[in-house]
Amino acid sequence: MGWQRQDHGPSVQGALEDAAHAITGERPAVHAAGRTDAGVHATAMRAHLDVGKAIAPFRLGEALNALLRPLPVAVLDCREVADDWHARFSCTGRAYEYRIANRRAPLSWEKGLAWQVARPLDADAMATAASKLLGKHDFTTFRSVHCQGGSPVRTLDRLDVTRDGERVTVRAAARSFLHHQVRSMVGCLAMVGLGQWVPEQVAEALAARDRQRLGLNAPPDGLWFVGASYPIA
Amino acid sequence: MGWQRQDHGPSVQGALEDAAHAITGERPAVHAAGRTDAGVHATAMRAHLDVGKAIAPFRLGEALNALLRPLPVAVLDCREVADDWHARFSCTGRAYEYRIANRRAPLSWEKGLAWQVARPLDADAMATAASKLLGKHDFTTFRSVHCQGGSPVRTLDRLDVTRDGERVTVRAAARSFLHHQVRSMVGCLAMVGLGQWVPEQVAEALAARDRQRLGLNAPPDGLWFVGASYPIA
Repeated sequence: MGWQRQDHGPSVQGALEDAAHAITGERPAVHAAGRTDAGVHATAMRAHLDVGKAIAPFRLGEALNALLRPLPVAVLDCREVADDWHARFSCTGRAYEYRIANRRAPLSWEKGLAWQVARPLDADAMATAASKLLGKHDFTTFRSVHCQGGSPVRTLDRLDVTRDGERVTVRAAARSFLHHQVRSMVGCLAMVGLGQWVPEQVAEALAARDRQRLGLNAPPDGLWFVGASYPIA
Repeated sequence: MGWQRQDHGPSVQGALEDAAHAITGERPAVHAAGRTDAGVHATAMRAHLDVGKAIAPFRLGEALNALLRPLPVAVLDCREVADDWHARFSCTGRAYEYRIANRRAPLSWEKGLAWQVARPLDADAMATAASKLLGKHDFTTFRSVHCQGGSPVRTLDRLDVTRDGERVTVRAAARSFLHHQVRSMVGCLAMVGLGQWVPEQVAEALAARDRQRLGLNAPPDGLWFVGASYPIA
């Protein structure tokens, strides 16, 4: 069901919290830099939990992985941090990658790990459109109606579109993103890539600050959380 | 169950032949450049079939994909070839990639798509050992006892080992390979990488021409068929 603990299905947060409970006997909450939706992937999520029990970080990481092993969740590294360090609130930069497989053939090994777009995408036009979203804006158009993020204003530091054979990759970076922001931006860029929109229409959709003006919300499959950055202590 | 049609489970060949039968009403055999084992992947397999029915190649490819869609099998391209062209017998070069995830943490999204090796691998030592297998040799040591490939002599044109972060990749190319040859070579290279063998022991195992001298057969998960080449007509 994605990152966030849910009553109605498995989640990454739930898996980590349950494993931490089994190891420590405590009920620590696990907080992450980003709360990914169901179907979204992460190669470099950061998360933290407060543990009372004396346990070496390396041992905790190993114990968590031993319990998580049947699930598609793994702890890559586990370290002690300062008491006031918070995976979400201390995070000053998030990076996402969105992977599009631009090909007619259905996906095989990559099913669920990329978005298959059958018709040819013009990646250069997508890059032009992407540049119109850079900077500080009200991103209401690109925000889920379920977004709880407060202000719709965000500063988009990076939105690149590149092609390598059939792979079209969109790379996005910002201090923080609104709920569904990357998927909504990618959906509109894809409309440009397909020739259904001209790049200027992405700028117009942004300026409208109206969710009804969204062209398309890209599916979660292609979205990867690839980086969280923090100030150096 | 891998490429080859089996009575006891699904196969790539079986899926293609059944789909071709449904489309043409004929019972064409599908021949591939390489017969991958169960658990092995292919990004660029070449295969051919003989069809009597008049059907445009593009339409045949689309129809195959429509039927294959639920399965992890897809036709990337479909073209008419000369009558005497044979995907297996005309093939003059095969290329494989073997992906190792050299990390303590279990695999998450890449489960089944790479070989997880928890202890640190010395990729430079592996590369040194790999160079000892290049050229024309009797590869009996690196051949499955079930191999039906006739002569155990093969000419290995390429065997590179590179590291990029936690990823260690072995790239192999030859006119043809024996059954299990790449997995067997990678298994021995991993023993070198782990410090259990010195590079010279790989040369000794090769010279022994004895399957009993094999150090380790790497699992199928990490093996990818990535290229088949043919003489330009």
